[in-house]
Amino acid sequence: MRKIVVGVMGPGEGATATDRKRAYQLGQHIARQGWVLLTGGRNAGVMDAANQGAKAAGGLTLGILPSSNTSNLSDAVDIAIITGMGSGRNTINVLSSDVVIACGMGMGTASEVALALKNGKRVVLLTDHQESQPFFGSLSQDSIFWASSPDEAIAFVKDALQI
Amino acid sequence: MRKIVVGVMGPGEGATATDRKRAYQLGQHIARQGWVLLTGGRNAGVMDAANQGAKAAGGLTLGILPSSNTSNLSDAVDIAIITGMGSGRNTINVLSSDVVIACGMGMGTASEVALALKNGKRVVLLTDHQESQPFFGSLSQDSIFWASSPDEAIAFVKDALQI
Amino acid sequence: MRKIVVGVMGPGEGATATDRKRAYQLGQHIARQGWVLLTGGRNAGVMDAANQGAKAAGGLTLGILPSSNTSNLSDAVDIAIITGMGSGRNTINVLSSDVVIACGMGMGTASEVALALKNGKRVVLLTDHQESQPFFGSLSQDSIFWASSPDEAIAFVKDALQI
Amino acid sequence: MRKIVVGVMGPGEGATATDRKRAYQLGQHIARQGWVLLTGGRNAGVMDAANQGAKAAGGLTLGILPSSNTSNLSDAVDIAIITGMGSGRNTINVLSSDVVIACGMGMGTASEVALALKNGKRVVLLTDHQESQPFFGSLSQDSIFWASSPDEAIAFVKDALQI
Repeated sequence: MRKIVVGVMGPGEGATATDRKRAYQLGQHIARQGWVLLTGGRNAGVMDAANQGAKAAGGLTLGILPSSNTSNLSDAVDIAIITGMGSGRNTINVLSSDVVIACGMGMGTASEVALALKNGKRVVLLTDHQESQPFFGSLSQDSIFWASSPDEAIAFVKDALQI
Repeated sequence: MRKIVVGVMGPGEGATATDRKRAYQLGQHIARQGWVLLTGGRNAGVMDAANQGAKAAGGLTLGILPSSNTSNLSDAVDIAIITGMGSGRNTINVLSSDVVIACGMGMGTASEVALALKNGKRVVLLTDHQESQPFFGSLSQDSIFWASSPDEAIAFVKDALQI
Repeated sequence: MRKIVVGVMGPGEGATATDRKRAYQLGQHIARQGWVLLTGGRNAGVMDAANQGAKAAGGLTLGILPSSNTSNLSDAVDIAIITGMGSGRNTINVLSSDVVIACGMGMGTASEVALALKNGKRVVLLTDHQESQPFFGSLSQDSIFWASSPDEAIAFVKDALQI
Repeated sequence: MRKIVVGVMGPGEGATATDRKRAYQLGQHIARQGWVLLTGGRNAGVMDAANQGAKAAGGLTLGILPSSNTSNLSDAVDIAIITGMGSGRNTINVLSSDVVIACGMGMGTASEVALALKNGKRVVLLTDHQESQPFFGSLSQDSIFWASSPDEAIAFVKDALQI
């Protein structure tokens, strides 16, 4: 039977120390809940930190790579999906996640939040980027939630999953 | 030799009357410059209006459809690219455009602006959506331009193309 | 109103002199019929030869590139669709073609013939590769046609388009 | 650390009873080796049978769906990758597999074998479809192996993985 998959999206090279710390904690929480962690799979920023956190807590991790090989895969990813589709894989990231958590903000992350909302997914935002809340809040009233900590983000995910 | 392609991205069913009027004018301008118009191809909102404008001015129009057939194609599209990839085609829209004009704002359009910036494309925003400028301005300083009319948007495109 | 698009698929670097000669003639024929030529867009083999033929006859050419930029685009392509999706673009090639002509055979071409048949497209094969006819003939009885010359291939396309 | 992923590709509705029996056994073998099973994820034919076999043997199963939701997912898939890309996902199937086993033959399977060879993957064919061997053998000498039983197919996979 299909497992619950929770996506953590966030900047790679542009992630802040806070983004990475939160991503690590999100990964731990997701693993402890028994959910599968989905990320963009690269060995950078939020992607790598979330996977490291999930593996430290004994979780299962899934990385959806933009590249056509595994040369830039995080070593904390268990299962690599190799798309060779560049940013085209961002749609797959959000469609395959039961709930999307955006941890930090950047151009790629913004595209994923927008694609998630466009495709009817619920999104939790966990970021200090101040312009994100008014922008995404203006695009969607019902499907987006604002968290101020990993704990609060996970509480929103549980609520969205009706657990 | 490859023709210049200018993309006009914008809401479908959610487009305002102002968005559609501006999109029609953008289509006319693009056709008169001898550029190819690229849109998301559907017979709705900004996509359809831009194509109608371009055809009224004798232009060539290209529609990149999300669907796997042409049942929802604008009748003002000359050449349909049928992707069958849903929102996955948004990446193709921006990669194939020499410059991207966002006319109006919505979840799909936001994803295209973000994907364009992520992939190094220059973007012109023409929208009354007030939260867009601070949000995208915080993500990119150099690659995004704010236009208040179709004329001004086209001037930015010419500048970006160094014409 | 949408123009008729005819796809010519075939090997790049692996094309034979016969494949390239036939591709050039197919391009000429397609242009003279007023159809748009669609290819995989690269400056190699059947793709390049078909585009050169179409341009020599005054046609309009469309190239669907696997790469994320135009560095390997045939100089006889008018409109480049830049997918950044590698072989993932093969599905787009066949969905966007009203009829597919396979000129020559190779691994990429085989995938396109199979994807075309899978998606309900009619396919004309023009190749000296002897194993192709029994193989594809066993997969489809109704949707595949065997041509022995560019003239015959175009006659099949006209028939398929009911012209 | 990344797990080994073995893909089993084959017909859905067109699968024969032999194809399904072999697919079930392949799934069992793959699970017993500790490899992750990758399929196209639908609840039909070879895809479903391979997943059922892997789950019966306690394995982990990954389904790469063509659709944009899970309405046609095999109930023996643990992790669903939802692409919304139709046949465009066939490229992802083969790129994400360390080795590809084709069990049975059809238009979709043929596209996957061709895409796998095109992208440098090793392929094991296990099918009674007689035209497959001369066809694919003519396209690739080094990367394709012919198996007459699930046991033999798994032996080829071990050899390809140098285990």
